[in-house]
Amino acid sequence: MKIDILTLFPNMFKIPLGESIIGRAREKGILNINVINIRDYSENKHKKVDDYPYGGGAGMVMQPQPIDTALEAIDAKNHKIIYMSPKGKTFNQEMAKELAKEERLIFICGHYEGIDQRVIDHWVTDEISIGDYVLTGGELPTMVVIDAVSRLIPGVLGQEESFMDESFYNGLLEYPQYTRPSEYKNMKVPDILLSGNHKKIEEWRKLQALKITKKNRPDMFEKYINGKNLNKEEKKLIQKLLEDKRLTF
Amino acid sequence: MKIDILTLFPNMFKIPLGESIIGRAREKGILNINVINIRDYSENKHKKVDDYPYGGGAGMVMQPQPIDTALEAIDAKNHKIIYMSPKGKTFNQEMAKELAKEERLIFICGHYEGIDQRVIDHWVTDEISIGDYVLTGGELPTMVVIDAVSRLIPGVLGQEESFMDESFYNGLLEYPQYTRPSEYKNMKVPDILLSGNHKKIEEWRKLQALKITKKNRPDMFEKYINGKNLNKEEKKLIQKLLEDKRLTF
Repeated sequence: MKIDILTLFPNMFKIPLGESIIGRAREKGILNINVINIRDYSENKHKKVDDYPYGGGAGMVMQPQPIDTALEAIDAKNHKIIYMSPKGKTFNQEMAKELAKEERLIFICGHYEGIDQRVIDHWVTDEISIGDYVLTGGELPTMVVIDAVSRLIPGVLGQEESFMDESFYNGLLEYPQYTRPSEYKNMKVPDILLSGNHKKIEEWRKLQALKITKKNRPDMFEKYINGKNLNKEEKKLIQKLLEDKRLTF
Repeated sequence: MKIDILTLFPNMFKIPLGESIIGRAREKGILNINVINIRDYSENKHKKVDDYPYGGGAGMVMQPQPIDTALEAIDAKNHKIIYMSPKGKTFNQEMAKELAKEERLIFICGHYEGIDQRVIDHWVTDEISIGDYVLTGGELPTMVVIDAVSRLIPGVLGQEESFMDESFYNGLLEYPQYTRPSEYKNMKVPDILLSGNHKKIEEWRKLQALKITKKNRPDMFEKYINGKNLNKEEKKLIQKLLEDKRLTF
């Protein structure tokens, strides 16, 4: 996959996308990431890229010319052009899966009060937000989307890592995990995990997953218990969880 | 504010938190960010930090000892200790405001299948997720939370920038912005924004904000139109928007 990133802060991308799984994918040639400084395309003699908003209001708006010229220069037409913006649709794993099918993605990182709407209307195919919080610019959101998307491209993750992704969003948050040693500073791993009884372990994990989901994401929990794919045992477990106060948080 | 970050990838934090507004806040001494390599605290002779999960399953789990020893070393007790995790509560602007009141925040970045639950039970005060998508580790989410939180600390943003934040989450997405030139490649700024009629401009902006919110965030739109603080003019505008097909998307 080829990824172009248009930004006023190209340095921000130097290290985070060079580390870990993304870094390995770039080395393997599966990912080709190209960072473009929008300022380089400003036709203003002072390399200005922003100006006051028409109609008044605080802040500065990024002008159409530098972004438009940069998009022309990289031949962006007919590809996904993503503008990271608080006004966008909220990013989720389904969107990541769709984007992972593309051959090329182009990201525009906004700053200040955002970019001129004419660039959005003329070029942008997807306006995406990563969540309901205010950030300094589109750079971190772009990294988040690239991380989520590139993990889904075949060859980026090893087989075992891929499996983890698959098992992840089945509608519940993950059960607690424990590893060596079995006792650390008087804190013990739950006996059941050391029992070797796989059926019991699975049941315990399902119950824990239900509990943590109920506590931290009541929205997901409601959706899950009203879903149609629950089997008898799950229904019994949920009934128990809802009735027994000792089991609830 | 003092921020400690426990991570296996300390390099990832070198540049992103040194740029832009966060970088300025660090220079001014408002933010003091300390990045700690968890591996440095491993008592294993090979500096191992993870092992297989008890009870079976794919992936590796980060062991309790290195994280526990690192937290003891930085005297983390009695401070907010945040574990970035897909199991956490979903981050939002309200949580950012609460965290911005703290004198010290400590972040733990997980990798692989996460960290041993005993560390979470013993140390962690807040388990936070930035959204419903799968990422490689807690590093990018930590940067996102630090960015959102530090913008809210007095002195980090200039007065005008602060104002932008205040006006931002009033329940609607932001109206489109335009700046110079008024005509670019046959694309014109809407006449009304050049009219100088502030009342009309405000009305136009409110209508645009309602439209974009209805299109991209039906959840926010529903909440807004059912809110109790709408004035007569807003109610009229919403009625118009819901009735007139030319006004809807």
